[in-house]
Amino acid sequence: MRALVYGGRGQRAWSEVPDPVILDTTDAIVGINCTTICGTDLHILKGDVPEVTPGRILGHEAVGTVEAVGDAVTNFRPGDRVLVSCISACGRCRFCREGQFGQCRGGGGWVLGHLIDGTQAEYVRIPYADTSLYKLPTSVSDEEAVMLSDILPTAYEVGVLNGTVRPADVVAIVGAGPIGLAATLTARLYSPRHIVAIDLADSRLEMAKQFGADETVNSARQDPVARIRAITDDLGADVVIEAVGIPETFELCTQLVRPGGRVANIGVHGKPAMLALDKLWAANVTITTGLVDTYSTPTLLAMVASGQLSARQFATHHYALAHIEDAYDTFANAAIENALKVVITK
Amino acid sequence: MRALVYGGRGQRAWSEVPDPVILDTTDAIVGINCTTICGTDLHILKGDVPEVTPGRILGHEAVGTVEAVGDAVTNFRPGDRVLVSCISACGRCRFCREGQFGQCRGGGGWVLGHLIDGTQAEYVRIPYADTSLYKLPTSVSDEEAVMLSDILPTAYEVGVLNGTVRPADVVAIVGAGPIGLAATLTARLYSPRHIVAIDLADSRLEMAKQFGADETVNSARQDPVARIRAITDDLGADVVIEAVGIPETFELCTQLVRPGGRVANIGVHGKPAMLALDKLWAANVTITTGLVDTYSTPTLLAMVASGQLSARQFATHHYALAHIEDAYDTFANAAIENALKVVITK
Amino acid sequence: MRALVYGGRGQRAWSEVPDPVILDTTDAIVGINCTTICGTDLHILKGDVPEVTPGRILGHEAVGTVEAVGDAVTNFRPGDRVLVSCISACGRCRFCREGQFGQCRGGGGWVLGHLIDGTQAEYVRIPYADTSLYKLPTSVSDEEAVMLSDILPTAYEVGVLNGTVRPADVVAIVGAGPIGLAATLTARLYSPRHIVAIDLADSRLEMAKQFGADETVNSARQDPVARIRAITDDLGADVVIEAVGIPETFELCTQLVRPGGRVANIGVHGKPAMLALDKLWAANVTITTGLVDTYSTPTLLAMVASGQLSARQFATHHYALAHIEDAYDTFANAAIENALKVVITK
Amino acid sequence: MRALVYGGRGQRAWSEVPDPVILDTTDAIVGINCTTICGTDLHILKGDVPEVTPGRILGHEAVGTVEAVGDAVTNFRPGDRVLVSCISACGRCRFCREGQFGQCRGGGGWVLGHLIDGTQAEYVRIPYADTSLYKLPTSVSDEEAVMLSDILPTAYEVGVLNGTVRPADVVAIVGAGPIGLAATLTARLYSPRHIVAIDLADSRLEMAKQFGADETVNSARQDPVARIRAITDDLGADVVIEAVGIPETFELCTQLVRPGGRVANIGVHGKPAMLALDKLWAANVTITTGLVDTYSTPTLLAMVASGQLSARQFATHHYALAHIEDAYDTFANAAIENALKVVITK
Repeated sequence: MRALVYGGRGQRAWSEVPDPVILDTTDAIVGINCTTICGTDLHILKGDVPEVTPGRILGHEAVGTVEAVGDAVTNFRPGDRVLVSCISACGRCRFCREGQFGQCRGGGGWVLGHLIDGTQAEYVRIPYADTSLYKLPTSVSDEEAVMLSDILPTAYEVGVLNGTVRPADVVAIVGAGPIGLAATLTARLYSPRHIVAIDLADSRLEMAKQFGADETVNSARQDPVARIRAITDDLGADVVIEAVGIPETFELCTQLVRPGGRVANIGVHGKPAMLALDKLWAANVTITTGLVDTYSTPTLLAMVASGQLSARQFATHHYALAHIEDAYDTFANAAIENALKVVITK
Repeated sequence: MRALVYGGRGQRAWSEVPDPVILDTTDAIVGINCTTICGTDLHILKGDVPEVTPGRILGHEAVGTVEAVGDAVTNFRPGDRVLVSCISACGRCRFCREGQFGQCRGGGGWVLGHLIDGTQAEYVRIPYADTSLYKLPTSVSDEEAVMLSDILPTAYEVGVLNGTVRPADVVAIVGAGPIGLAATLTARLYSPRHIVAIDLADSRLEMAKQFGADETVNSARQDPVARIRAITDDLGADVVIEAVGIPETFELCTQLVRPGGRVANIGVHGKPAMLALDKLWAANVTITTGLVDTYSTPTLLAMVASGQLSARQFATHHYALAHIEDAYDTFANAAIENALKVVITK
Repeated sequence: MRALVYGGRGQRAWSEVPDPVILDTTDAIVGINCTTICGTDLHILKGDVPEVTPGRILGHEAVGTVEAVGDAVTNFRPGDRVLVSCISACGRCRFCREGQFGQCRGGGGWVLGHLIDGTQAEYVRIPYADTSLYKLPTSVSDEEAVMLSDILPTAYEVGVLNGTVRPADVVAIVGAGPIGLAATLTARLYSPRHIVAIDLADSRLEMAKQFGADETVNSARQDPVARIRAITDDLGADVVIEAVGIPETFELCTQLVRPGGRVANIGVHGKPAMLALDKLWAANVTITTGLVDTYSTPTLLAMVASGQLSARQFATHHYALAHIEDAYDTFANAAIENALKVVITK
Repeated sequence: MRALVYGGRGQRAWSEVPDPVILDTTDAIVGINCTTICGTDLHILKGDVPEVTPGRILGHEAVGTVEAVGDAVTNFRPGDRVLVSCISACGRCRFCREGQFGQCRGGGGWVLGHLIDGTQAEYVRIPYADTSLYKLPTSVSDEEAVMLSDILPTAYEVGVLNGTVRPADVVAIVGAGPIGLAATLTARLYSPRHIVAIDLADSRLEMAKQFGADETVNSARQDPVARIRAITDDLGADVVIEAVGIPETFELCTQLVRPGGRVANIGVHGKPAMLALDKLWAANVTITTGLVDTYSTPTLLAMVASGQLSARQFATHHYALAHIEDAYDTFANAAIENALKVVITK
């Protein structure tokens, strides 16, 4: 088959590789119908994720069709149309038992396109298929479903649920890229009073309005702290969601939050940040970090199916699988291309 | 009356001052039977708390007898023996309605010995007496009760409850001063499997054992991270409590915690710390800060009264109120003097 | 002044009575601009609430203007336009400290029109004014605000929050009178997948659709259990809200709930019901009861002010205060009159 | 092999039957070292559990040694000493994903000795072995471990955790049989102020004291409601645990609970009970039911291993497996024999 193979820092190629085969009785082989590219894939290509070694097939998001299953797989059979989750779950370890599938110690967690071959390929081997795939109803299109592989559960669990957004809250979301927009969309499920999107690019802020933000702050021109204080009786936001991943934006989040409020970090950070404990020690603030656990995937899938969540609007660009390298070029220039998610279809 | 008056950085004096009087209908005047000194009082004397201005009577912990009450006070009458809480609560603002009395916006919060005159005096005016004092049963001595003014509810709420200690947990407590020991004592209420006390002084670690720690690590000689990993299958502690207040100890806490665990900061910090988001972003870690809210004071008082909590063991030194300056000298050299709390009695 | 005075079972009269006066320093006197009638008022008139004795002024819902305040009242002054909550809160007792104001042991709880004179009058004395009144923004009309005295916080706290409605849930609401409709409206804040209204009257079910139900079951003609099972993969509803108050409807609720689900009772019951423990003992079901605590009143008020909650649609009929007896006649025949709430204005 | 076979109402026999064999790749065959008898086994023998059909091998509690495993089993291998949980978990269905293993829809839940052959035999087939067995450390004896099959997690999860026992609570436990005693033992982990055991038999109340109750009420001679009110300022107990399973005891529980309190039902009920909604509708009471989910089994096992929980004291009588019928006779007359759990060993 053909697949996008990582060749070391800055190197990738759409290459001929051997087809994946069933290695364990709990495996499934899935034929890829649709995949997409994540910001993390770009980090890998920059050489920032040293566990990814040359030769690895990239990608951890996909919708596909089951081709074959191991003897122990009971929930799926060949022909089933499935969502491939970015998180594989052994279903047996202490963390899986507690629903923290992202922290799986039994060979799961984030492994696809990272520690084992991934989804940017014609076929992929999925370990622990029974607990890592989700059957798709016909009412959900491939393009909608692929947003459930990573971006929607990540934003919802690590941002909205960790941040415990509640009705009437003021929510500040720092960063209006795909993950920030997904947090905006799913925060709306809890009826906050205001969602304030904060970013440096007007084009992304415009997008944030379409996803449900009712206030926007271009932090290149406006002071977000002053703006949040102005709409919160000088208290600060109830919930602040970090969706960028650099020290400056995290530090901004801790300035935006009210006493008793919560900061939920979603951003993938490559460096430490300063935590202003001299200001925060007495402020009853809660700060959370997290990798998606995907415990919410069935819930989100039900809401995409019922029309409560509009997943389609993330798909701004479309490519054929054979042209995935063009898709990478577009996504790597997302700001210029006005790209959110590039949908790559067989 | 006489009172300990702050005179600017490094200055304090046991001085003659006017008696306090009722200013608001919700006030009470309390005659002090017993008070004590907090680490924060030392911070004030160092000039680290600029809101405290010269002329302020220090102290926010006390047990006393009600002398007079304003017209609106209904829960107390002259002669009642009462606990003075370090937190005053208006009982009316948004934060008080939510039980976050420490964040009171109506003139309460931590005001005693800070924004208004405090308890290291013969008499003190207590605002919002109905919601800031607690009637004491005769079974609880002054010396036990004064530990409920600050140290026990602070350690319990901001350390143990924010950290959500649960049965069978491994709890690491960094710092074995009075607040760390109070966290040790109250963490035991939830039956953790291990409480590991971490400190630089063997004498304090010995004390930690008496308060309920079953493991101790002298971090001058041993690597606490290795020790915690050794008893947690290489995972890290379920709950880590910071009870020192400097960047190094906070940063240690974030290295000690397991994926999915919690870091509860109690320490009063004067500087920011580094937060290793590059290591923590995917670790499902929760970090909390907090000023005590004293919502747990009635619970803790009931447990001191029933003998479930032994508060007396904090009282290592005793002074008469007139000799409070000697008490300060002892407490300022707590390590050398082997002092935990100095009890100062009328 | 004139007021609606209870005269014993079946007796009420719009009568001349003495003006209320300040009795305690924490009291306020409020001039009534707008009041309404609750189902509980009808219960009282039937003689079902024996604590209400002849001579009592009825009513526990109102919007008004502060006329006078006691010396200890700090949050309000004459001229303030205020919401009168059905729950008075001393703000000092154990239950008030925990935010359970409805269970107040200090002279509050539901006292208006019950244990002390109520709001269906030209003036009312409000005890503990600082913790029992809410200042109203000009953007909220009297008619909207009066729905916040009882019906909206009751339905939200005792139904939606006790039932812990979550995104994608299936919620069944038994009873589509005013309280069931308020539960429907506020359940929507949590983005359930379906709200199924169940009632015997088609006219009320039509109303339920306007308030946000997307499915209706007329239980005179259809089996609600079969209907709920049909839309829940035969499992049952995630959350079931009882909003009637008779044994049959409560028993229906326990048949509608799924394993692991919740039944939140709002109905005011005069008789015991059967609890089918033989069927439920192993079903991980949670059943809650409750009187409104009004901890959510500020939240709901903010959402009415921001337009997130449309309170106006409850007001189906309007009367002048002097004609309150006509309003009672209409409300007592709510089904025939298609009445939800009758708004009675000065 | 030989096994205890159900023969219809009142019929049981220690019989020769075929050895169990691996049917699915996820199965294990476990050789039984130790088993015990549950009150439910007696219910089955009375014919009260119609799903159990003649020919079924009884028993759902055991400690044993893995003899063989299916191809998909990865956590266990022959020779492993294991705890057999009363709950089997497919680990894949919606309920297992949420940690509600007792409600498993994938072929698990309570199946052993119920829907499939059980543990009162020389060998047993365990479905979904990876998620239904627990490896035992050598520090835990068979006799201690077998108390973790059912009785300890049931009492802890369905009683103590559903009831949310907290430090300083007053906990009333109705019924001092094995399950009530296990609730007493595990409630102590949360440091309640009082545990009040209520039963009709003085001998069982004596036992309750040994397990940690500090107050006892013989309800044949004393009014438990009066007694609980006397020690709770007339309020009622914070948490009430039902551990009998008849209408009268459940109804008593709802009289014992304070406003804002919780009733956790563990009892297996054969009939409905009356729920006094006329008294409870306004009382903010929470009532829970549940089958054990065994999410707490690893926690409890860790605490038995560390000596925090003394499981051994449940074992009052011992029999050889070949004499299991004598063990049944003893257990069926538990009151006369002063029996708690009868330990049956190979």
